Amino acid sequence: MTGDGGQPRSGRVTRRTFLAGAAGAGVGLAAGIGGAAGVARTGVFGEGQKHAAPPTVPFWGAHQAGITTPVQDRLQFAALDLITSRREDVAGVFRAWSQAASRMCAGQPVADLNSDPVPPPPDTGEAVGLAPARLTITFGIGPSLFSNNGEDRYQLASRRPSALADLPLFRNDALEAARSGGDLAIQACADDPQVAFHAVRNLVRLAHGVAVPRWYQTGFGRTSSTSASQETPRNLMGFKDGTNNISGDDAGLMEQFVWAGEEGPSWMQGGSYLVARRIRIRLEAWDRDSLGSQETRVGRHKVSGAPLGGVHETDAVDLNATENGQLIIPAQSHIRLASHATNSGARMLRRGYSFLDGLDPAGEADAGLFFICYQRDPRSQFVRIQEQLAEQDALNLYLIHTGSAVFACPPGAREGDWIGRSLFES
Amino acid sequence: MTGDGGQPRSGRVTRRTFLAGAAGAGVGLAAGIGGAAGVARTGVFGEGQKHAAPPTVPFWGAHQAGITTPVQDRLQFAALDLITSRREDVAGVFRAWSQAASRMCAGQPVADLNSDPVPPPPDTGEAVGLAPARLTITFGIGPSLFSNNGEDRYQLASRRPSALADLPLFRNDALEAARSGGDLAIQACADDPQVAFHAVRNLVRLAHGVAVPRWYQTGFGRTSSTSASQETPRNLMGFKDGTNNISGDDAGLMEQFVWAGEEGPSWMQGGSYLVARRIRIRLEAWDRDSLGSQETRVGRHKVSGAPLGGVHETDAVDLNATENGQLIIPAQSHIRLASHATNSGARMLRRGYSFLDGLDPAGEADAGLFFICYQRDPRSQFVRIQEQLAEQDALNLYLIHTGSAVFACPPGAREGDWIGRSLFES
Repeated sequence: MTGDGGQPRSGRVTRRTFLAGAAGAGVGLAAGIGGAAGVARTGVFGEGQKHAAPPTVPFWGAHQAGITTPVQDRLQFAALDLITSRREDVAGVFRAWSQAASRMCAGQPVADLNSDPVPPPPDTGEAVGLAPARLTITFGIGPSLFSNNGEDRYQLASRRPSALADLPLFRNDALEAARSGGDLAIQACADDPQVAFHAVRNLVRLAHGVAVPRWYQTGFGRTSSTSASQETPRNLMGFKDGTNNISGDDAGLMEQFVWAGEEGPSWMQGGSYLVARRIRIRLEAWDRDSLGSQETRVGRHKVSGAPLGGVHETDAVDLNATENGQLIIPAQSHIRLASHATNSGARMLRRGYSFLDGLDPAGEADAGLFFICYQRDPRSQFVRIQEQLAEQDALNLYLIHTGSAVFACPPGAREGDWIGRSLFES
Repeated sequence: MTGDGGQPRSGRVTRRTFLAGAAGAGVGLAAGIGGAAGVARTGVFGEGQKHAAPPTVPFWGAHQAGITTPVQDRLQFAALDLITSRREDVAGVFRAWSQAASRMCAGQPVADLNSDPVPPPPDTGEAVGLAPARLTITFGIGPSLFSNNGEDRYQLASRRPSALADLPLFRNDALEAARSGGDLAIQACADDPQVAFHAVRNLVRLAHGVAVPRWYQTGFGRTSSTSASQETPRNLMGFKDGTNNISGDDAGLMEQFVWAGEEGPSWMQGGSYLVARRIRIRLEAWDRDSLGSQETRVGRHKVSGAPLGGVHETDAVDLNATENGQLIIPAQSHIRLASHATNSGARMLRRGYSFLDGLDPAGEADAGLFFICYQRDPRSQFVRIQEQLAEQDALNLYLIHTGSAVFACPPGAREGDWIGRSLFES
């Protein structure tokens, strides 16, 4: 183990100190770190920081992490295409991914570092010294794994859940193939973007020869809360977003709306369906709209987040209230059309992120909302709501849906087991 | 002032509480916030967080902020092209930018928010409620403002500093016009990427009709330190980067290497020259190189950061040391070729960032290092060093320079004054 000139800050436990504690001094890494105890659970997040939550989120559990976990600040998402014809190769990736993900979420490298000069390092290294930052890694499986242009690639077509239906094309969709679909998905969320980047990079590396990346999406700021402990963030329209999101803390609502149950195949029970939509926002045009028009389109006041007619962000949304015979929350306002009250009670757990992918050829920001939601059945939840929004939402003038994907996220796994085993092995 | 359902966390002072303190309850923003006192200087960064530095960095001062400021974690950079033929339009942008930047760096919106429904909001709003996050905004002026295809656009050609020379083409440069050059530059650094994004978005908006964005670059993780108080970060090669960077704390070194002096025009005295290079790293290939080869190319051990032959990161780099008649730090290693000892003493202040801009058409990560450095004269500093690196650096196998720009960053301004006035008005 090399000596280390740096000293961690007071009370901070990082991958660096984790490594430093594993072996004595000397040139090169003489000892692996696998035998050392896991990273400490306290001390990374000081008083006054955004998240009082502990710095690590367990990878193992009944459900995959990263769904109800209080939304971390940053996202790295990847969709991959399989390039193998053998089911066992795919299973091997999920086995390796589960093992590596459990280590990275605990603040460890993918595999023990060593000083052997001959092979490439087992971990790419850019997260050494960084705190775990509440990293979660969530794996998903796309419809095309079960049926690719009609081909039953892995003899799994009979196990495809009916809830994993291809999404319909919605009005005004402008989807790009290179930003849509995918056989596999990795959602890495963390409070440090370098930790999320490192996770995806190393998982993609582990899939070498079996799967190749199809698209990446980085998100720099969360646009919803999934816990009552979190403040409501603002999206790039400048509005508070997700005020009425269902809370991951509410086990009853999660059972009702998020976790797949006995209605589908057993390998998905306790899992959830992820819908991702890359929604570009025409920011330059939006920024020229009047405050009154912006608020009318959203249905909320911009600074306070209160519903129109209300004073506080958390005031109940009264869709029936009128003033001078006019609906106070207009018929085409976003919050009315997205409300479960106008969607037969349909709700879903949102955990999207703002993105900026540079400029488009016209010199406008290629920025917007990378919408992510989890649900029990997209057909009766996301699709139902989006059909109504696509037809009527007053925000549509400023929105372009450029990417779309749906994935089945299997349930969690017990320590040492692996995500997806009951699909691939049964 | 709207009521506000959210409560700030313990000890956290944000734009939200700043707003909340400005006026009483009511629907809509009845009162501006301009008269309230500035944001508090303490409480945002708790014990155990990375930066013990205060949450705001003053915009006003003898030098522009964002040069010697301890490097913040996240970057949003923008280069713009002028579309006006009138010098007073350009001056007007710098006047408006300076005013707006001073407010944003203090945690305030660009201009007082109000509830007037008719005009567009004066600030786009997505930073309301966020801490100032040590935001700095640094303005630069490119060679093309002085001479654009030989045209003296603003009758300023005679004031162009000789140090603001166009950069030469280096060996293996693969520069893209859409990622290079620019008449104006905005460097926004903050510990919160949404704060940096908000700054650039609003400054670009203020330049409407006078300048349009040419390229944007987001950086998600700093790759150097500019203060002895900071830990050395890791770049995407997984190596500690910038161990021997000069320190912004060292006023003598700054005078010697960073701040322009009497050798140039008076309007640049106390300013500095920014060179930006978008250096793509071929990560997939790098990740297949052996540890020994990686360390030989860099000249340091990967985990510890110690120079080859050393034990600790901060061990002196002994370029003359040999073992069995061979140089321990190889002739083509990066740290040898970048060292001031092999560059006639040339040094510069580096403050670059890692980036990821999705996938290229071949499915490889378009990721790397957005290199930024500041210096007194690029001709004898960056250019001298880069010429040597471009010819010999063993890392070049994995590097592609895809963007390049140089900007003159004028000195700072006193409160109420504006950056660049002595260029545009004298």
